[in-house]
Amino acid sequence: MADAVFLAIDWGTTNRRVYALDAAGAVVACERDDHGVLAIAREEFAAEVAGIRRRFGDLPVLCAGMVGSVRGWVEVPYLRCPADLGVLAGALHRVDARTAIVPGLSFVAEGRGDVMRGEEVQLLGSVVAGLAPRDALLCQPGTHCKWAWIEQARVERFSTTITGELFALLRGHSLLADFLTGAVADGAAFRAGVAASADATLLTRLFGVRADALLGLRARGDSAAYVSGLLIGSDVREQSLVPGQAVHVLADAHLGKLYAAAIDLAGGRAVAVDSEAAFVTGIAALWRMTNAPKS
Amino acid sequence: MADAVFLAIDWGTTNRRVYALDAAGAVVACERDDHGVLAIAREEFAAEVAGIRRRFGDLPVLCAGMVGSVRGWVEVPYLRCPADLGVLAGALHRVDARTAIVPGLSFVAEGRGDVMRGEEVQLLGSVVAGLAPRDALLCQPGTHCKWAWIEQARVERFSTTITGELFALLRGHSLLADFLTGAVADGAAFRAGVAASADATLLTRLFGVRADALLGLRARGDSAAYVSGLLIGSDVREQSLVPGQAVHVLADAHLGKLYAAAIDLAGGRAVAVDSEAAFVTGIAALWRMTNAPKS
Repeated sequence: MADAVFLAIDWGTTNRRVYALDAAGAVVACERDDHGVLAIAREEFAAEVAGIRRRFGDLPVLCAGMVGSVRGWVEVPYLRCPADLGVLAGALHRVDARTAIVPGLSFVAEGRGDVMRGEEVQLLGSVVAGLAPRDALLCQPGTHCKWAWIEQARVERFSTTITGELFALLRGHSLLADFLTGAVADGAAFRAGVAASADATLLTRLFGVRADALLGLRARGDSAAYVSGLLIGSDVREQSLVPGQAVHVLADAHLGKLYAAAIDLAGGRAVAVDSEAAFVTGIAALWRMTNAPKS
Repeated sequence: MADAVFLAIDWGTTNRRVYALDAAGAVVACERDDHGVLAIAREEFAAEVAGIRRRFGDLPVLCAGMVGSVRGWVEVPYLRCPADLGVLAGALHRVDARTAIVPGLSFVAEGRGDVMRGEEVQLLGSVVAGLAPRDALLCQPGTHCKWAWIEQARVERFSTTITGELFALLRGHSLLADFLTGAVADGAAFRAGVAASADATLLTRLFGVRADALLGLRARGDSAAYVSGLLIGSDVREQSLVPGQAVHVLADAHLGKLYAAAIDLAGGRAVAVDSEAAFVTGIAALWRMTNAPKS
């Protein structure tokens, strides 16, 4: 195995992944922990990176994600869509000669704004890696779910939904909380929720979860899966998929299965993408663009 | 002023109103406090009512609301819609010879269930009082908002939305909370939220609140009013009003104004109804039906 030539950090709100990559972009070593930006004070980032260099080698570092936000190391301005890897590479924020941060993206049109930090590397890396075509709709579920329309290997536009956070709020703090203790998996209750999302009456359907349980119309233990289906189904519905439309989904196995089911029920066609491979390919491409020998 | 002949208690989750009414249904005395059912253990209800009798007179008592729920004094089964005042009067739950609880209503159809406790007295009281016609759509905003379709002075069907609770969850516990500290009133930001609700992309629009503020597209202080408009606008949209449709709104002045604005923007016509007068008229009618001298 070749020696590592740089370190890539996928530095999110709550989690952090560090990769040591060789000149071909292959992973030599990696580490995942919960040192996300919320766990680190602004003045501690330099020491964190020094620690990473001690563990992985004294190499150049390329970071992406919330590390470039107002809550991170240094606030890096968003780049406006459309944007491709070349645009990102040209706008890296240099913390010092050997340390840089990838900027996030913004989208402003259609009477609304949207922002992302970190997902752009995965999105464009998917295309470089051949995991998604140069024209594609990509979906990145999570606390907030990103939907990105890629055209000619550029992020043309994107939108974000509050789906995962809303589920957590309902389960943690709402008057429905007592009903939402059951497991969530792709099954009859989840699919009933997806089906119920079709008429776009989310505020009514959410109250109905409690009423249905009180009236014996749905087993209380099925309520969480139903609400998950209702929310994920609403999320997919808001994207107005055309029949047969491919959606490339970058997610862990659990969320990936739920989104795939909802996408298929909406008439789309879900394709699973390895989000870690996408990130590694994307950040390695950025590295090559910014560190290739000048011709 | 005539002497009181019975005591009516509108006993909700967090608040309680007590009215002493004369034979003509006029209010002789009243009291409002925060002794809702959540503040009272099941075995304490009898003592609470005894205390009310000491303050207002040793009279028969008729209660409505969450006092009849599983968290209240005694769980009274729901009556199935359609239901009118006569049906309610015939199904009072007698705690003892001089104390009764009005049952709540349930609705099961259209693939969903719904429940109410307490609102039914206001709804049908509105009609008896002449505050709403015998065929009407009534709206009762609050933590949960009730929409009731009244036909021939019967509650024919109803649905409940989680609107107010969702706003409180977002303001109190979400990643949007920092943005939602501004005042909420009917104004440009509120109306922009109502307008944005029209395309039924609530999950996208909610994340957009944060993005819009970060990108300077909306003043941070306007975010709360915008979210209120988004949620209330979504609530109204889910009711599929026909152009010019009258909606009788039973609410306090603040919420009543917001719902009236959203209803008018949706092409309906909001009519304010005095919810306290509606309750008093409804409970007095129930009293007369169950205590009139037999002919």
